[in-house]
Amino acid sequence: MAKPRLSSIDGKLAEEFAIPSHINEVGEKMSAFAIGHAAAGRRVVLITSGGTKVPLESRTVRFLDNFSSGRRGASSAEYFLDAGYAIIFLHRHRSLYPYTRTFSTINMLDALQFTGSTGDVVVNQQVLPNITKVLKRYQEVKDSELLLPIEFNTLSEYLHLLKTAAQALSTLGSKAMFYLAAAVSDFYIPSSEMPEHKIQSSDGPLQLSLNMVPKILSPLVKDWAPQAFVVSFKLETDATILLEKARRALETYRHQVVVANVLESRRGYVVVVTPETQAEVTLTEEDLRNDIEIEERIVSTLTSAHNKFITQSLV
Amino acid sequence: MAKPRLSSIDGKLAEEFAIPSHINEVGEKMSAFAIGHAAAGRRVVLITSGGTKVPLESRTVRFLDNFSSGRRGASSAEYFLDAGYAIIFLHRHRSLYPYTRTFSTINMLDALQFTGSTGDVVVNQQVLPNITKVLKRYQEVKDSELLLPIEFNTLSEYLHLLKTAAQALSTLGSKAMFYLAAAVSDFYIPSSEMPEHKIQSSDGPLQLSLNMVPKILSPLVKDWAPQAFVVSFKLETDATILLEKARRALETYRHQVVVANVLESRRGYVVVVTPETQAEVTLTEEDLRNDIEIEERIVSTLTSAHNKFITQSLV
Repeated sequence: MAKPRLSSIDGKLAEEFAIPSHINEVGEKMSAFAIGHAAAGRRVVLITSGGTKVPLESRTVRFLDNFSSGRRGASSAEYFLDAGYAIIFLHRHRSLYPYTRTFSTINMLDALQFTGSTGDVVVNQQVLPNITKVLKRYQEVKDSELLLPIEFNTLSEYLHLLKTAAQALSTLGSKAMFYLAAAVSDFYIPSSEMPEHKIQSSDGPLQLSLNMVPKILSPLVKDWAPQAFVVSFKLETDATILLEKARRALETYRHQVVVANVLESRRGYVVVVTPETQAEVTLTEEDLRNDIEIEERIVSTLTSAHNKFITQSLV
Repeated sequence: MAKPRLSSIDGKLAEEFAIPSHINEVGEKMSAFAIGHAAAGRRVVLITSGGTKVPLESRTVRFLDNFSSGRRGASSAEYFLDAGYAIIFLHRHRSLYPYTRTFSTINMLDALQFTGSTGDVVVNQQVLPNITKVLKRYQEVKDSELLLPIEFNTLSEYLHLLKTAAQALSTLGSKAMFYLAAAVSDFYIPSSEMPEHKIQSSDGPLQLSLNMVPKILSPLVKDWAPQAFVVSFKLETDATILLEKARRALETYRHQVVVANVLESRRGYVVVVTPETQAEVTLTEEDLRNDIEIEERIVSTLTSAHNKFITQSLV
């Protein structure tokens, strides 16, 4: 029963969303990364992060976007690394990045100073008090090649790269995790209906008609990586519909976890929803004073659940 | 004749675009900055830079945006500073910034290293070969307080901050320049027609109906800063309509210059259009080899034109 629908999403992907030219090269990189770390006994998580760009013109000046700085994905990546995972970090170009996420380039230039004698440029650690700690961890992760960064910009790039990543991780079975934190558009304009050139304001008010983006979670869970541990995110602005939507997503896609959150409170409160359970993760006033990040708790909850999932899948 | 139309734009601004809460504070800062530098004999340029965000929901998850990294504005700012101008840099949050624009935070962390003995963190200048030059100039500009950075995110913030900046600069007469390089949306959804909550994909395909953004250049030139030297930008993807559109803008708004450019070639070719003249600015192969940026030529053309404009306005 499911097959025709799945292949129709695959077909739609190929027809209506431009395939990135470097997809095969990236696919090989991801496969080699996954196989190498699995051989070394590591679990691998694919983290998606940041919003997707949806062009309104084929020579794109205007686009639709989703609110997302990439903070949750970048922060979570650090905690997954601490927990021993290797990471494919599929993120929006220029969104926040693990370790560098706490700085801006302006912060960094503000912290640099010349030393009198040598002409060296050094970091003033009073301006960037945590630079030593962050830099050490950044260098360790880089040296151990535990993080494979892959960038996307548009919705089309995101969809194809996610499919390729899922196929690359499918060989890992239950030891692969998908942590789908990217804010992906639900709507797009098919290339056949897209004007080539910049829409002219002299043509008057703008009417846009957007199609629904195929629900990629469906073939991911059923076809591309059917044994993996899959975590999706549900962000709403209306708290009253949140949990029902999370439950409905689990029923529809039959994956393992939905992390449900509300826009305004997302940094201090989420609900980790599974078909059987519902766990609130909350930061207290004291946590906030101690600079605890909610992603540390989310990742800890999910790595435990992933442990159980792997054990059960081996039975 | 013009008055009713102008006040209608002013009215529309106040009614349909939320006024940023810090507008008075920013206005005072900009006035003090302009007056101080004018008293020291400096010209002041307002540079706008980056794209504007147009929310689709009042608790915003989705938005429309315009393609713009802010490169042109950030790069031009450096050349205006070299030419002796003081700058109000009205830019999109997280868009490129003068001096830091050539680095990413990842570049910078990659270039940092610990020195064996002291625990100092120093920049490896082989990784960032131009850091000394850039940092020197950045620090000079900072120490001399020649750059006042002001951020916007949404279209509403942009429109109100531009108006406030124009009023702050109006006291400088012809010595003020407006360099309007930001990529401003032509379309928006009025708050009265905007849903409060995230648009639900379960409601099916999305129909959007967008209104025209009022042409802010009109009151800027006629009302807010009528003696200033005003440069607008025209970006098209279709080269065949570009110059006609530039000419039409000059006729409609009666300002001094349109910098006309085409998306694909914008880093190597622009046309500086005035009511009387039309000057092509082109980078040659040799320029490109020598890392010459087109903004250096654009700024040089405009500062000369501004000189003439000031002289003529004194006659």
